[in-house]
Amino acid sequence: MPVRLIERTPDAYAYPLLIKQLLHTPLAVAPDQEITYMGGRRHSYRELRQRIGRLASMLAGLGVEAGDTVAMMDWDSHRYLECFFAVPMMGAILQTVNVRLTPEQILYTLNHARADVVLVNAEFLPILAAIAPRLETVKRFVLIEDAPAAVAPVDLAGEYEALLAAASPDYDFPDFDENAQATTFYTTGTTGLPKGVYFSHRQLVMHTLATAAALGSAPAQGRLHRDDVYMPITPMFHVHAWGLPYVATMLGLKQVYPGRYVPETLLKLVRDEGVTFSHCVPTILHMLLVHPLSKVIDLSRWKLIIGGSAMSQAQARAALARGIDAFTGYGMSETCPILSLAQLPTAALADGPEAQAALRAKTGIPLPLVDMRVVNEVLEEQPHDGQTVGEVVVRSPWLTQGYLHDPAASEALWQGGVLHTGDIGHVDAAGWLQITDRMKDVIKTGGEWTSSLQIEDVVAQHPAVAEVAVIGVPDEKWGERPLARVTLKPEHVGQVSEHEIRNFSARLIESTGVSRYGVLLQVQFVDVLPRTSVGKLNKRAMREEHGPH
Amino acid sequence: MPVRLIERTPDAYAYPLLIKQLLHTPLAVAPDQEITYMGGRRHSYRELRQRIGRLASMLAGLGVEAGDTVAMMDWDSHRYLECFFAVPMMGAILQTVNVRLTPEQILYTLNHARADVVLVNAEFLPILAAIAPRLETVKRFVLIEDAPAAVAPVDLAGEYEALLAAASPDYDFPDFDENAQATTFYTTGTTGLPKGVYFSHRQLVMHTLATAAALGSAPAQGRLHRDDVYMPITPMFHVHAWGLPYVATMLGLKQVYPGRYVPETLLKLVRDEGVTFSHCVPTILHMLLVHPLSKVIDLSRWKLIIGGSAMSQAQARAALARGIDAFTGYGMSETCPILSLAQLPTAALADGPEAQAALRAKTGIPLPLVDMRVVNEVLEEQPHDGQTVGEVVVRSPWLTQGYLHDPAASEALWQGGVLHTGDIGHVDAAGWLQITDRMKDVIKTGGEWTSSLQIEDVVAQHPAVAEVAVIGVPDEKWGERPLARVTLKPEHVGQVSEHEIRNFSARLIESTGVSRYGVLLQVQFVDVLPRTSVGKLNKRAMREEHGPH
Repeated sequence: MPVRLIERTPDAYAYPLLIKQLLHTPLAVAPDQEITYMGGRRHSYRELRQRIGRLASMLAGLGVEAGDTVAMMDWDSHRYLECFFAVPMMGAILQTVNVRLTPEQILYTLNHARADVVLVNAEFLPILAAIAPRLETVKRFVLIEDAPAAVAPVDLAGEYEALLAAASPDYDFPDFDENAQATTFYTTGTTGLPKGVYFSHRQLVMHTLATAAALGSAPAQGRLHRDDVYMPITPMFHVHAWGLPYVATMLGLKQVYPGRYVPETLLKLVRDEGVTFSHCVPTILHMLLVHPLSKVIDLSRWKLIIGGSAMSQAQARAALARGIDAFTGYGMSETCPILSLAQLPTAALADGPEAQAALRAKTGIPLPLVDMRVVNEVLEEQPHDGQTVGEVVVRSPWLTQGYLHDPAASEALWQGGVLHTGDIGHVDAAGWLQITDRMKDVIKTGGEWTSSLQIEDVVAQHPAVAEVAVIGVPDEKWGERPLARVTLKPEHVGQVSEHEIRNFSARLIESTGVSRYGVLLQVQFVDVLPRTSVGKLNKRAMREEHGPH
Repeated sequence: MPVRLIERTPDAYAYPLLIKQLLHTPLAVAPDQEITYMGGRRHSYRELRQRIGRLASMLAGLGVEAGDTVAMMDWDSHRYLECFFAVPMMGAILQTVNVRLTPEQILYTLNHARADVVLVNAEFLPILAAIAPRLETVKRFVLIEDAPAAVAPVDLAGEYEALLAAASPDYDFPDFDENAQATTFYTTGTTGLPKGVYFSHRQLVMHTLATAAALGSAPAQGRLHRDDVYMPITPMFHVHAWGLPYVATMLGLKQVYPGRYVPETLLKLVRDEGVTFSHCVPTILHMLLVHPLSKVIDLSRWKLIIGGSAMSQAQARAALARGIDAFTGYGMSETCPILSLAQLPTAALADGPEAQAALRAKTGIPLPLVDMRVVNEVLEEQPHDGQTVGEVVVRSPWLTQGYLHDPAASEALWQGGVLHTGDIGHVDAAGWLQITDRMKDVIKTGGEWTSSLQIEDVVAQHPAVAEVAVIGVPDEKWGERPLARVTLKPEHVGQVSEHEIRNFSARLIESTGVSRYGVLLQVQFVDVLPRTSVGKLNKRAMREEHGPH
């Protein structure tokens, strides 16, 4: 017998989960709350709503219809927040362009996403100049002018503020299917073309609600509430600034958009605007902590989600020492992004900085509705013993359903009904996940997984080692065994042997029990390690030298 | 051009919003957290999950399939919480039977909902005895035995605990359409047959998430977090105990189920189990506040949502004086139920008890995604001026889509794309709603609405008045005008005239500006006011004496 579906009236059925619904509560109870932007601009929520209406009217005037794609090339700004709402609320798709990509990559993403209209900050006109003739689908351009612009290399429909001023604030945002695509943007791996991920209205609303529920339910540390002042420090072009602008808007918070991420500016905004809640990558946190102003400004009310890459325990301690409530958020572009937050149990807040930092650097507690598991190669869940590793797979209502127009990559992402994060980790008895490696960097030895990162940590402890990259190389007996490619500090070259580094590392591996098969390590000295265009170690290139696996 | 629907993989598409998904997070991070029940029983979340599996196996063994209806007749208990999950997780429908209805009404609801199986506490066997021969659809009965039971008037499939012990904890809860009906129960108006409302998995999940987000985001007062200890004091048969057991479970809270609501027991549980979060109707709050124990137990950590009917400001002050953080929750059976919560702005917490109580007695801040408006008769929103009244209409993702098998009543509930609450109120500049009356009790005079409750408050201030009920009666000139039917205190009978009460009231109405047309009041002495079977004033009967409107 099938389940019984609820009887629905046509009216009632039409409450789809749409981004516009996030605005009901703040407009009702916080219409005069302010949002401040780079350059001193301040809008109330009421004004934000009017500008969203004007932006939609303006875009409709340019011919934008439901299903069209509007690409945004700007730094964090009031324009960006307006686009976060207006474009999807029209039924169109917002493409948030990573302006740090090369012009060729930007060209690729605009063509691949079939962008119809581009809103472009004058600062990026040189990029347009390089690619405009090869844009295949873009029909109109709107200029964003913070400073007087050079001559544009394309025909412009006009300037953003002038067009908005001339447009009507009254735009009747329709209801439509909640599975309508709302946003798209491109991830950049270490190799290959950028890959597009995409999210629907329903997915963004679910991510917003679940993130708010998770952030709100923390007893003391790492929580977000309506008195907080929110300032993003991850770009709005990157996974919707982790989705937090939607959360902050839904809750009616005071918001602060800092524009470019200049440490001094950011720290002054924390002081002057009373910022209490932000999120950033470890690199930004590092820049903030080493800035002299961070030593004289009171940062003790600042809560900071750290994500994008792993926050080290040392960095967590450094932030704690400055009074900052820094804690890990885990997720990725493919997951909208937030999956879990390292909100500590209250008892742990009494622990010393060492113990606290260890927890703050873990992935923490899954958001409501997130089904996140560490599994072996046949998708069986691994024990919660804090040591058995496996791949992290996930289900939740806000995962990209694939890569745009890329069935092969989509199929690899989704296997067995779960999204494969490509991360390796283990779960402890308290349910906390610790990521230990990327799947592609793991070494499969004797049927078990060995973390290349853990072995690198060990090898790097030898005083002669400058840099190290560990990869798995084919081995007849073991399947794979670890190979460390090492560059030496100049003063040690010729003074130490590969054999010595190997024995040093193997002893340390055995004594710490880090990695059972790590003792099979081989060591090879090289003059230089290969790197990608953005400066990351290129392990893929190293592996390819050793032939296919 | 239509919106572009997201490309979906079959696997990913299959993440419907189902009640079982609420269990992911607590089972991952709080498996050993405890839930305590009447009589001292304690289960961990891990045990809860196993018992949910056993219950489903047991029900499947009795023939329960997806789409079937399982009716529950019990006081709040571990069985009830298990049913909250297991029954809908199977794809079946949980009917929560209001055991305070008359046997005839219970018979009506079981037949009307087409219940297949009834789980019944031995205490209610006498009810079954009265109705069993007339039950049209029930095939099996399961006995719940807290104390040795009398001989059952029906064939029993067995006793709950014994059947669970014999059933397997491994039950593979399937995925299915999120619009599958999960629960149903019956509302009781002042007249007529009970009306069934019903909620889908999707609706319950959305209500749970939005309630958690709202409760979590309060800065200080009226908030819920993971260190809270939750104890419901509204029956689980009534709107799923306001949906809070789902919220508490999703967050992995310690929970305390008190069974029957005996003030002394409740207060001792607050003390002994460290209860910090509850919800109840004003009557229960009154019973708690007058109990001697409430004066010696520390209640200063207790947060208490008050709903069901309006908390008076006097009661809010009395609770505050005892240290209780009492605040209004607004909603109704038709709305799952929560629509808004009176969480005060932080600044208001510094106000004196008078000002605070006024806010705490209002309806407060709408939950995320709730589109709640006060409108005139053509559905235009009324100004947020704190005085212009209208009917409260609402849209949100968790409203009953009608009354079960009752198209006419469903159509009256849903008109113009919004659910009509039947409540009258006004909204102030801060977006806070104040309910002033029930629609059906409002008097339409000279084209405007006058609150019968406000006039009753005025008339009741005359020292001779024992009770008063104000209704609208047809009037050629005004459409309707208010009529107060008054009973006098015995010592005043014959000592005061209708005219005197009328003039006293009119003067007070004029001086307070309460109600512009209230001065048209007529007064009529009666010996007794008509009441309904549950003791409420029966204004409908009074109005009917004056003929149809």
